[in-house]
Amino acid sequence: MKKASLSSLKVNNALLIFESLRNNGPMSRANIARETHLMPSTVSYITSLLLEKRVLKEKGSEEVSRVGKKGVLLDINYEDFLFLGYDVGSAYSRVIVSNGKGDIQYSKRFESKKNDSLLKQIYENIQTVNKKFNIKGIGMAFPGYVNPEKGMVVRAHNLDISNFDVKKVMKKEFNLPAYVDHNTIMMARNLISNNSHKEKDFCIINIGPGIGVGIVNDGKILRGYSNAAGELGHITINSDGRKCNCGKKGCLETESSSKAIVKTYEELSGENLNCEGNCDSSIVYKLAEDGNKKAIKAFERAGYYLGIGIASLVNILNPEKVYIAGGVSYGWKYLKSSVEKSYKENIFYANKDVKLELPSIGEYITALGASTFAFEKYIKEELISRKL
Amino acid sequence: MKKASLSSLKVNNALLIFESLRNNGPMSRANIARETHLMPSTVSYITSLLLEKRVLKEKGSEEVSRVGKKGVLLDINYEDFLFLGYDVGSAYSRVIVSNGKGDIQYSKRFESKKNDSLLKQIYENIQTVNKKFNIKGIGMAFPGYVNPEKGMVVRAHNLDISNFDVKKVMKKEFNLPAYVDHNTIMMARNLISNNSHKEKDFCIINIGPGIGVGIVNDGKILRGYSNAAGELGHITINSDGRKCNCGKKGCLETESSSKAIVKTYEELSGENLNCEGNCDSSIVYKLAEDGNKKAIKAFERAGYYLGIGIASLVNILNPEKVYIAGGVSYGWKYLKSSVEKSYKENIFYANKDVKLELPSIGEYITALGASTFAFEKYIKEELISRKL
Repeated sequence: MKKASLSSLKVNNALLIFESLRNNGPMSRANIARETHLMPSTVSYITSLLLEKRVLKEKGSEEVSRVGKKGVLLDINYEDFLFLGYDVGSAYSRVIVSNGKGDIQYSKRFESKKNDSLLKQIYENIQTVNKKFNIKGIGMAFPGYVNPEKGMVVRAHNLDISNFDVKKVMKKEFNLPAYVDHNTIMMARNLISNNSHKEKDFCIINIGPGIGVGIVNDGKILRGYSNAAGELGHITINSDGRKCNCGKKGCLETESSSKAIVKTYEELSGENLNCEGNCDSSIVYKLAEDGNKKAIKAFERAGYYLGIGIASLVNILNPEKVYIAGGVSYGWKYLKSSVEKSYKENIFYANKDVKLELPSIGEYITALGASTFAFEKYIKEELISRKL
Repeated sequence: MKKASLSSLKVNNALLIFESLRNNGPMSRANIARETHLMPSTVSYITSLLLEKRVLKEKGSEEVSRVGKKGVLLDINYEDFLFLGYDVGSAYSRVIVSNGKGDIQYSKRFESKKNDSLLKQIYENIQTVNKKFNIKGIGMAFPGYVNPEKGMVVRAHNLDISNFDVKKVMKKEFNLPAYVDHNTIMMARNLISNNSHKEKDFCIINIGPGIGVGIVNDGKILRGYSNAAGELGHITINSDGRKCNCGKKGCLETESSSKAIVKTYEELSGENLNCEGNCDSSIVYKLAEDGNKKAIKAFERAGYYLGIGIASLVNILNPEKVYIAGGVSYGWKYLKSSVEKSYKENIFYANKDVKLELPSIGEYITALGASTFAFEKYIKEELISRKL
């Protein structure tokens, strides 16, 4: 074992204190020492550095009455820094500005452009926000294959982009640090840090052009060995079923994704929606709202397979709750009864109390996950690891 | 936050040091202090107590050359205490005696009795071993629904026992602490602590009368919210398929469990194996060994569905490797090609390198997992928490 250098020890201790305050909320220096097993003198020294950098702030004093003087509470300075969160979707994108707590200062939803125009659109949106707000960094959520360590989008099939070095581009164009991850993972991050959701073991299913699941186990995201966990859309649900884009047959995605709902509607109605593969289920949703029975039927078929798939997921993982999000979930009123029926039929009895629920936060869940993720990374990498 | 009492602080620090040595291997006191963030004086004091209790031992000195004197290495005293590991199976049971490292001193495999006779058999086997060896505690693995916190078997359908308070009975009969868990979890524990398996993210599938999976994520067992994770046997593999004992239809267990293989053979051959539900796949295995084509076919059908089920598991979790264990896996040579074919057909390309493998340790994997689990619990609960 190598002996750590003094400065790396300082950084490690600062990260330890930061994590402890994130998990436990405001604490006095004495309680921080107890939680982290650091020496009180070390806590005193490191917190003074973190207060100087505005990573921490003082926040009143302890409520617990104790013999001797009350300890001043320290907390993470969630409010003083703003971040941009960008949810790049294949149909719609969303941009928000929030502080580290997730308080939204600005939000915008718009149709996504494709390919080169998409990159231009991303650039222009960030430029607009960057002029208006003093943002410290950017969090971006993408579908497809993302390398969060390198800050790169390796391949996002539905957006028709590949090898997009987000980190490098944002540094060059805006001189801002950027942090990238998969959109479903950003959703899960949002639910982890959002205080209204107290579960430690849950899943969030993102149903859009693809179907992914963010798995949270004991408060942490399960990413798998090679960062590829969560491909719920590619479990086999019907081995004699439709051919999937991935090359396999009968994947859940071929029945319950946004495009599958369009396809089912076209099959049932004999109509051609003339969208050359670019339609999403919102067009079928509108038909359902107009009372179109076949459109309603298309949602119900998607729901039937979705219920089987979610039941398999739950039988394997036994989470406390399953959240349903993503574009298709906006048609939940047409999915609900068929999902819940087949889910109930396929759930093992030990999991019969595991409920399905839409997250209360709504459509900005991914963008908010991205901005608060950027906050955390910025504090850890820019303010602590680089500058302490 | 409550202020911790002095004695609970001492216990917490001792547990911290124990865990750190378990995860990192032998370390000097200085490195223990660095790893645990405890003060050197605290490490010195606590390790002296742990050496006195024989929880730790000195083990030569550091290999790394450093300025100043070499630190004496401390390690967990794996070798000095013996534990009994008991794998209670519905067809066969296994008993071993091992130290905390898993070095086997005694092993025995025998047919399991049923119901009251089973309890008598368990008692007699433990008595025999307890007379021969100076064991400090008992680890027991059961199928079915187990409450590890209470040390109870709530319901083991295949053994026809319920509400078996193992902890209480073993205390009364042998004055020994007993630790209980599900057999698949004990298998996973064995692979975690067995040094030849270095994976941090893996699954172990136990195929017997039921089909369970032990999920290990970042070195820790994923148990789920209510301790019910891993019911791979109850994912729906064929919604028009056979009726399952659990009340659902088309569960993986109805196609690939030990009893399902017997059933498939009976269907294919028109024979009745006259076992009133008590047969296991070993009888079909023997027929296959004699060249019976229908017996071989029965394994192949089980393998086909197993491949689909494992692919779904892997697509969700993205482990590094999947181990296949349990009674049915002894017929691996008749399963292998059909499992691997359907697995390959149903695996998402990001997981194409995830391999299936039989664990090298063989049939005592569960009993060994139980005895080394008992070692860990005994040290933590009896030597540290109670007596330090």
